[in-house]
Amino acid sequence: MADYITPLQQLIEQFRKLPGVGSKTAVRMAFSVLHLPKEEIQAFSDALLAVRDGIHTCRICCNLTEGDICEFCADDRRDRTTVCVVEDVRDIMAIERVRDYRGLYHVLGGVLSPMNGIGPEHLHIKELLDRLSDDTVKEVIVATNPSVEGEATAMYLARLLRPLSLKVTRLAYGIPVGGELEYADEFTLRRAIQGRSVI
Amino acid sequence: MADYITPLQQLIEQFRKLPGVGSKTAVRMAFSVLHLPKEEIQAFSDALLAVRDGIHTCRICCNLTEGDICEFCADDRRDRTTVCVVEDVRDIMAIERVRDYRGLYHVLGGVLSPMNGIGPEHLHIKELLDRLSDDTVKEVIVATNPSVEGEATAMYLARLLRPLSLKVTRLAYGIPVGGELEYADEFTLRRAIQGRSVI
Repeated sequence: MADYITPLQQLIEQFRKLPGVGSKTAVRMAFSVLHLPKEEIQAFSDALLAVRDGIHTCRICCNLTEGDICEFCADDRRDRTTVCVVEDVRDIMAIERVRDYRGLYHVLGGVLSPMNGIGPEHLHIKELLDRLSDDTVKEVIVATNPSVEGEATAMYLARLLRPLSLKVTRLAYGIPVGGELEYADEFTLRRAIQGRSVI
Repeated sequence: MADYITPLQQLIEQFRKLPGVGSKTAVRMAFSVLHLPKEEIQAFSDALLAVRDGIHTCRICCNLTEGDICEFCADDRRDRTTVCVVEDVRDIMAIERVRDYRGLYHVLGGVLSPMNGIGPEHLHIKELLDRLSDDTVKEVIVATNPSVEGEATAMYLARLLRPLSLKVTRLAYGIPVGGELEYADEFTLRRAIQGRSVI
């Protein structure tokens, strides 16, 4: 016998599918579940099903939502003239933590990646163009990651949006606050020098 | 907003309860679930409930089982004269992987630990004595971990079983196979010297 009894083994295999979980960790997790009170296991199981059934994509910005429209698109206090384009829902959370941006969002759902067969038709670009068709939005901030693919996607979007009469901006590159020049890579440092400002 | 939408946040909190899972890992796990096909999420949820409802303790040896008696106790080919006493169900798996031991098991469910308020009454010691009451068992191998508490538990059991006419043994201490003398701790090395054998 190499396996645990069936129900336990099946749970171990479910845990193994999670990112960063190897077989030993999965066993440890399954045993920890075994020792939980019955109602907590029920809550865990319910939470999984709620994620499966209760989460939709916002009709406007493709953010996650429990309803038809996400909390940002539904919020009248947000500035409707600015849209920040991000790769992923988690990037919205990162920007919201800063508590500085009051505009709307648009989730691309990835970046252009010809190597992985991801072209413009796989991203929520059509939805972006749709919402820019009336003249409400004045600025689109392209906040894709500062990676090669994120950069290429930003360039693609900038070219696509140029014909529309709106401002297309990109987040600033530079040395991170609290970082040390000595340890900054040359690409970052070059962008920091190019983007220097008068003090 | 610091939280994700409710269903996602609840799943993140469920993952956070698992051993070794911090908040960033929990977020990553919840998002990976979000991208699973619906039937896989159902299977995950079912697996949790199956562990809750389908796992019992073997009436004889306190191993985990789906029925009344575990596969070892039910297996006629196992040697019924030897019982190996382990702390935890996972220790059975470790011994089974060796494919060398053909006797039965007994799961204590822990070790004596006065510091944590765990006395003999909290372990499955009564069940062990019950099954030793007929004269089938000739040898009890005490395979608690080589820790201070595991050792104390082994000594306690040895004293308890001495009046019964059976052999009580303990796994050998020594240097691990493939290990290096140079890096062996002094306690292990002392036990290896004491337990030396003629070659």
